[in-house]
Amino acid sequence: MLRAVFFDIDNTLYDSTTLARMARLNSIRAMIDAGLEGEEEELYARLQRVIARFGSNYPKHYDELLKDLRVPWSPKIVAAGVVAYERTKFGYLVPFPGVIPTLLELKAKYRLGVISNGIAVKQWEKLINLGVHHFFECVITSEEVGCEKPEAEIFHTAMQALGVEPEESVMVGDCPRTDAEGARRVGMKTVLVRLRGGEEGQAQEADAVVHDFRELPETLRRIESVV
Amino acid sequence: MLRAVFFDIDNTLYDSTTLARMARLNSIRAMIDAGLEGEEEELYARLQRVIARFGSNYPKHYDELLKDLRVPWSPKIVAAGVVAYERTKFGYLVPFPGVIPTLLELKAKYRLGVISNGIAVKQWEKLINLGVHHFFECVITSEEVGCEKPEAEIFHTAMQALGVEPEESVMVGDCPRTDAEGARRVGMKTVLVRLRGGEEGQAQEADAVVHDFRELPETLRRIESVV
Repeated sequence: MLRAVFFDIDNTLYDSTTLARMARLNSIRAMIDAGLEGEEEELYARLQRVIARFGSNYPKHYDELLKDLRVPWSPKIVAAGVVAYERTKFGYLVPFPGVIPTLLELKAKYRLGVISNGIAVKQWEKLINLGVHHFFECVITSEEVGCEKPEAEIFHTAMQALGVEPEESVMVGDCPRTDAEGARRVGMKTVLVRLRGGEEGQAQEADAVVHDFRELPETLRRIESVV
Repeated sequence: MLRAVFFDIDNTLYDSTTLARMARLNSIRAMIDAGLEGEEEELYARLQRVIARFGSNYPKHYDELLKDLRVPWSPKIVAAGVVAYERTKFGYLVPFPGVIPTLLELKAKYRLGVISNGIAVKQWEKLINLGVHHFFECVITSEEVGCEKPEAEIFHTAMQALGVEPEESVMVGDCPRTDAEGARRVGMKTVLVRLRGGEEGQAQEADAVVHDFRELPETLRRIESVV
């Protein structure tokens, strides 16, 4: 019998890919408005490279972009990028359609948790902005556990927190490798979410694939009937 | 003849006192909602003490509050405080009534600048959120100059940036000591803004006091007629 459902956050509960793309694009536009010279597309590509080099949680991407462009440091340009990013971020930090009613429905039947790679406070900020921070009995982040999905330990830590066994647990996430394959290797059931109509490859790693969050209750019932 | 008008930012262009109070109060309420135990007023007073101890630009006030309360660190509670602060901040980052039309009117006649104590990027973020970042020919921050108002050097740096003399310049700010007294000592004219109906003491340090930003054009004309 299924007793617990664990969720990934980014690209599972909300569209983090579009958020990042639009927030970065708007930050480039704001920096151009603040005096940065260059073409929007070229500057966007440069920013992407800076973020790839320093990691997405590095706090000074715009300072590094100016260095990369050999442009003198300008607090006006950096601040314009920061403000545009933050404003855009708030606009896109909304749950995928159906997330809230579906979580409410699932909560009546299963225990709910989160297993997420990332910095604990940052991941909690996302859950709070999404308005779902009260829905989960445990939120396990790689920062706190000290290892990342797909490593087995992070899944075991989450299951221990809820006192459930792997065969009683489902992992719901968007990533074939870290979510589906990682959870499957520890004996959990797996559901792959493909909410932005992305690529279909490697879907065989999961017990089920959903293209709409609202399919989850029925999908879990089907998985349960097989269990 | 007056040629340049320099402005302070906090409590001059917008109501930073109310912003800070409401954002901190909402952060306390959100942390209580996220599981922090205690009375709102007592926790708010504790947070104020933490901020006084670590300075308002320290990035981990909520972590320190938990330490101060001898409560185990909780990323959920910290994130709840951060999100509530940020959301409230955006709501209060609006110019005082009349700031934008008045700056537009003044810009036709004078050169405009900012002289502000604070971190350059943070102060620019405020100007950008207020929508006034294109109004000023120079923005001088204490971080970049290496000294703070009321020291003479920061005023001289600003005047040099616009190529104006002290007797051609006015400083507009809310603080009798750093804005009015500091600017007067280097020979600038001074206008004290009292936009939240605050205390009247020490107004004699300034050439004029305004209680509404829209009084500025007429006030500057009067100062000019004396010059």
